[in-house]
Amino acid sequence: MLRLDTRFLKGFPKALKVYEKDLLEARERLLAKNKAPGAMLGWMGLPEDTETLREIRRYREAHPWVEDYVLLGIGGSALGPKALEAAFNESGVRFHYVDHVEPEPVRKLLRTLDPRKTLVNAISKSGATAETLAALLIFLNWLQKSLGEGWRRHLVLTTDPQRGALRALAEREGLRTFAIPENVGGRYSVLSPVGLLPLAFAGADLEALLMGARKANELALAPLEQSLPLQTALLQHLHRHLPVTVFMVYSERLKHLPSWFVQLHDESLGKQDREGNRVGTTAVPALGPADQHAQVQLFREGPLDKLIVLVVPERAAEDLPLPEVAGLEAEAGYLFGKGLFALLKAEAEATYRALAEAGQRVYTLYLSEVSPYAVGWLLQHLMWQTAFLGELWGVNAFDQPGVELGKRLTFALLGRPGYGEEG
Amino acid sequence: MLRLDTRFLKGFPKALKVYEKDLLEARERLLAKNKAPGAMLGWMGLPEDTETLREIRRYREAHPWVEDYVLLGIGGSALGPKALEAAFNESGVRFHYVDHVEPEPVRKLLRTLDPRKTLVNAISKSGATAETLAALLIFLNWLQKSLGEGWRRHLVLTTDPQRGALRALAEREGLRTFAIPENVGGRYSVLSPVGLLPLAFAGADLEALLMGARKANELALAPLEQSLPLQTALLQHLHRHLPVTVFMVYSERLKHLPSWFVQLHDESLGKQDREGNRVGTTAVPALGPADQHAQVQLFREGPLDKLIVLVVPERAAEDLPLPEVAGLEAEAGYLFGKGLFALLKAEAEATYRALAEAGQRVYTLYLSEVSPYAVGWLLQHLMWQTAFLGELWGVNAFDQPGVELGKRLTFALLGRPGYGEEG
Repeated sequence: MLRLDTRFLKGFPKALKVYEKDLLEARERLLAKNKAPGAMLGWMGLPEDTETLREIRRYREAHPWVEDYVLLGIGGSALGPKALEAAFNESGVRFHYVDHVEPEPVRKLLRTLDPRKTLVNAISKSGATAETLAALLIFLNWLQKSLGEGWRRHLVLTTDPQRGALRALAEREGLRTFAIPENVGGRYSVLSPVGLLPLAFAGADLEALLMGARKANELALAPLEQSLPLQTALLQHLHRHLPVTVFMVYSERLKHLPSWFVQLHDESLGKQDREGNRVGTTAVPALGPADQHAQVQLFREGPLDKLIVLVVPERAAEDLPLPEVAGLEAEAGYLFGKGLFALLKAEAEATYRALAEAGQRVYTLYLSEVSPYAVGWLLQHLMWQTAFLGELWGVNAFDQPGVELGKRLTFALLGRPGYGEEG
Repeated sequence: MLRLDTRFLKGFPKALKVYEKDLLEARERLLAKNKAPGAMLGWMGLPEDTETLREIRRYREAHPWVEDYVLLGIGGSALGPKALEAAFNESGVRFHYVDHVEPEPVRKLLRTLDPRKTLVNAISKSGATAETLAALLIFLNWLQKSLGEGWRRHLVLTTDPQRGALRALAEREGLRTFAIPENVGGRYSVLSPVGLLPLAFAGADLEALLMGARKANELALAPLEQSLPLQTALLQHLHRHLPVTVFMVYSERLKHLPSWFVQLHDESLGKQDREGNRVGTTAVPALGPADQHAQVQLFREGPLDKLIVLVVPERAAEDLPLPEVAGLEAEAGYLFGKGLFALLKAEAEATYRALAEAGQRVYTLYLSEVSPYAVGWLLQHLMWQTAFLGELWGVNAFDQPGVELGKRLTFALLGRPGYGEEG
């Protein structure tokens, strides 16, 4: 369960009335697009796709020998699986993310892997991502050299249903593939096979994850008073004049979640609107309580230029009581017999109050617990929030035109034919 | 080696002349403080401390049985060791960072560890850090229960030379300790035993690390034209009106370095100056090339409110050539025979140009390579930069008064005697 706490934002519940028309119209505009050809709103329907889930489950059961899972992918092809696998790996399968192009860690990884027990999963919607293609060349070659004709069983491709280099390779070699639906973009793809396939090997509870996401869908379409995604979209909208939006998560297991959110928010909303204005706020990742010892000094005494969002679990599956240790009574006696999770909760609450007291704008999203259900809900909630903000800010939340020049310059520097430096 | 490239900041070399007096005076003020009692400038001398290095080396050699190293510490006690160990672990000793208070990951860790082969290192300057004390209660109790009287050999404390709960515990129980010099604060402590002890177990080249840091010291004190730390301090100073400073590192091995820098910059500079003005810029961590697929869209098309710093290695120890794979000629042929590191370099260069073309303020720091020498130089360089900025912005770069309220509220919520909510 997801619960919003805005106790320090005095004007907020009233603002819902003031902005009711804008919000409902934004939602209508977004949903109307769903009928247009080329609309990238397929993420809304992913939580209902039980057929894909069954297919993934069968594939996982047919590969019980997998001990190491190597994910070749970058950006939206890596951030979602990484965030969820870190939180919910119950199987003990080791995951390795090649979401970079540094030679030394790749060499080191190849030295430690046993190819007979390794599954390589290359993920790229377009099939043209340079980093993923480079990694694929290395790992495909390694599988072929290590395993001979048996290499095909150790490579699975997650890509566009029809197009691109990975699709073509799969057809030529008879490789197993999973499809990223055409109308699902990278940063909205975590509940497609991009995330579900690795998570099946991690032994995560995928039904619960999707059930949580369906709850977010339900609330996204609910009347404004119950529509949590419209409400947090309004909170972001009301503070769009502040350059920074902090996303601070109080959970070690969810340590990679802020990076997933940063991509979702920054790449969806950081762009020029129809009038050519540069819009968007800069998302800053943070973890509690570690960042109380790193960023909170700035949040408390530095410029009041931030909207701060705390994500705080309300309970632990089982708390860990702190034992009494002789000799530590004076400094640590107040902790004796308390639970470790009680300390976490007290720190989150204290930070919430201290940030409000300093004059920063801050609200909290409480997660009932760090479970696949609650986190699935949170992910889909944040996708709805972002999509609503796209409508409110007049930008297309589903493209990324700003990264094209960098790609062209990279190709030019590498001498790819057909790409001039000025191209 | 460290090299500064400001090719897209037209006015820069000229600004050095304009600000020469301010910069030299800031340096003089900083160095003059070194003589005052209570000055927290001990980090300047750490690279020269060969006696501590020898002591650490002897301790490491006396503990060849260590296979798992559990570091209990948070903030400045964890971020530095984590950043360097991820880059330079050559020994295969497994490191576990308890820099959080979530019960489930602690339980999971305790289930996987063999206490006979585990060394626990609790790190806290003050000895009063709640998270570290809580973790210490759990791990000390676990060692005692698992090993009986032998537990003392498995716990080493890094703390203040005289004061605090860890020092008292060590004296009472006869535990081995390493001292954090009194005049070294947490976020400036990576080259003290805070970082050196874990890095000795990681098998990193500590001499090279300190030698690099000495080079930064030399340049910090050099004439302005050679003084890289004064120069990058000026670059940050000239752009202090921009709310965000991005720190984007093109190295997977250095993936935790941005978080170390965020603490150093935010906690040192985000505070009220003598006139009560809220100063400081918000550091945003980024990794290349992954964040080309996450944050660069915002950097290119979003608000021009950022100073962006790229950190780029100039060469790899050994590049990894990309093999030719039949069937991938059309999409990936341009990569055949190229090196993986050549792709990394091309992407960094392309991003540099694309960000400048978009109108963002951007400069690059080139590292000769990802080596202990170059990274030691970089860390010490950034400490000098931060200390100089403290002088230029009129703030104390070595305290953190803004975190006190949060601590008091946490104690109050946990019922620690002597702490009222209004404390």
